[in-house]
Amino acid sequence: MLNTPYLLFLGDAPDPLAAKVAQGIRDWRPDHALGQFRLDGCQADMKLPDLNIDEAVEQGAKTLVIGVANRGGVISERWLEVLEEALSKGLDIASGLHNLLTDEPRLTRAAETHGRFLFDVRVPQQSYPIGDGKTRAGKRCLPVGTDCSVGKMYTALALDAALKARGVPSDFRATGQTGILITGEGVPLDAVVADFMAGAVEWLSPANAEDHWDIIEGQGSLYHPSFSGVTMALIHGGQPDALVLCHEPTRTHMRGLPHYELPTLEQLRDTALPLAQIVNPACRVIGVSVNTAAFDDDEARSYLDELEQRLGLPCVDPFRHGADRLAEALLS
Amino acid sequence: MLNTPYLLFLGDAPDPLAAKVAQGIRDWRPDHALGQFRLDGCQADMKLPDLNIDEAVEQGAKTLVIGVANRGGVISERWLEVLEEALSKGLDIASGLHNLLTDEPRLTRAAETHGRFLFDVRVPQQSYPIGDGKTRAGKRCLPVGTDCSVGKMYTALALDAALKARGVPSDFRATGQTGILITGEGVPLDAVVADFMAGAVEWLSPANAEDHWDIIEGQGSLYHPSFSGVTMALIHGGQPDALVLCHEPTRTHMRGLPHYELPTLEQLRDTALPLAQIVNPACRVIGVSVNTAAFDDDEARSYLDELEQRLGLPCVDPFRHGADRLAEALLS
Repeated sequence: MLNTPYLLFLGDAPDPLAAKVAQGIRDWRPDHALGQFRLDGCQADMKLPDLNIDEAVEQGAKTLVIGVANRGGVISERWLEVLEEALSKGLDIASGLHNLLTDEPRLTRAAETHGRFLFDVRVPQQSYPIGDGKTRAGKRCLPVGTDCSVGKMYTALALDAALKARGVPSDFRATGQTGILITGEGVPLDAVVADFMAGAVEWLSPANAEDHWDIIEGQGSLYHPSFSGVTMALIHGGQPDALVLCHEPTRTHMRGLPHYELPTLEQLRDTALPLAQIVNPACRVIGVSVNTAAFDDDEARSYLDELEQRLGLPCVDPFRHGADRLAEALLS
Repeated sequence: MLNTPYLLFLGDAPDPLAAKVAQGIRDWRPDHALGQFRLDGCQADMKLPDLNIDEAVEQGAKTLVIGVANRGGVISERWLEVLEEALSKGLDIASGLHNLLTDEPRLTRAAETHGRFLFDVRVPQQSYPIGDGKTRAGKRCLPVGTDCSVGKMYTALALDAALKARGVPSDFRATGQTGILITGEGVPLDAVVADFMAGAVEWLSPANAEDHWDIIEGQGSLYHPSFSGVTMALIHGGQPDALVLCHEPTRTHMRGLPHYELPTLEQLRDTALPLAQIVNPACRVIGVSVNTAAFDDDEARSYLDELEQRLGLPCVDPFRHGADRLAEALLS
């Protein structure tokens, strides 16, 4: 579990998209985002106070979070200087980069000298049990996608926020590095050893009060042959009461696999629901979340209306129209 | 890849069942089994020559294989003495035990001193790629089970042998520790990191001659919530042309999960086949393999006849009646 609040390190982000981790924290956990640290040439701006390390420490920051992707997979000299300073002044550092903080001798040395922690959130920090599939109290919801990267994390965060806004007890349960950095905890499921995947998801979404919802971040897709095993473990480990189908309507093939077409939403529904009902016979599909970013407002509205007619389920773009209708469907 | 032939170490096996790894090697790769090494009190016998270390080395043994489960998860003093002697006289050691050879300082020291290798086949010995789902040449068959431990490995080994007996080029592809010890190579899929499971199966069953069959060892079950993600990765990474449904008819609940009933063979067929067809639209279910050990001959025959009527597929117990009818169905 990461200590909050954070100083968001934006480094020399070449464009706003490179800082999407910082943006996710800014959007979904603004209370965690005390300020930002930018190097010369940084092209991203979270509209947060620019703080140097001393100022951040003085204002109570506990962890410097790498909120930006690095170029070419190398932690540069300019970054290292800032990160060493942060450690020396009492901040921990958290990162979801592919190349690990703990592989940088200068950082491990500084962390040891100053008694601080380096959190590579891609690396499991503990061992997990083997799943036992036992029915547990509380409610769980899992977004599943027609493909990878169609908006499952965004959907889960928006649904969690919509539930909280209605006073419904809810937790977003992160299963990937961005989600873990946003909430400060979770399981990096892609990096868990095969035998313990389902158990890790059970651990992440334990028994809870009967009216409490865990909104579990999805990964991969049952239809994406590279990662479908991870999705399967989420469906069985998560024991969902509700599935949300997620879709990006302009995708012409599965991400990274030009030789694979996407399934229809009906196919996804008819595949995912019976698998989920193996562990939770009461599971149902409560709605569809569509990423309509490629459409203008009218196109988005008419696409969603048509889909809603076709499927008989609430179909929304939570970014455009909010997740209220999904929250309603979940609670109905 | 393990060096053959083997000296099978049976230790102080308390009963024949404890030596099932040795029995598997003896049954399926008799050419690998040069002899056996038994300690006083050993209750298992592979009907192989009893050899001491010197005799085994003289006759050309390359690897001592731990063919027996150890008691209480401890490698005893008696075992260590024999294993040290084997290393000192030029044998490698291979093991599928939960507690690792490489965690025993006496063994790592002896291996280093004498330039020998310790193979813990539960531990992946290399990194694997991320799966790409690309169609590859050659044919592949995967047994899938209504539960774990219903005879998937036995079915795959019997089918591989039946194909070879007909002159059909075939390879058994091991995905678990016993299978790896039997054939000397494979992927310990349960221990592979989630993101690389499907890629590891693709690596294990690569493109091959058009008439060549890979018979891939199955793991877990789509209906077993603890391990279904591993099964899913096998189905998508294995890209099977043929599935064999495996079943144990007296099982009253899923293995280790008293709160889960087994699916019917029809349910398994209707779940597994559409998932397999995502990566290989030509995939079909070619037959059913039933472990009828709990039945007498008449019961087994009548159970299989009835099942065959019900499903319209060859239904056999490969242990009782051989796998010829499955091989025929595969080739038809």
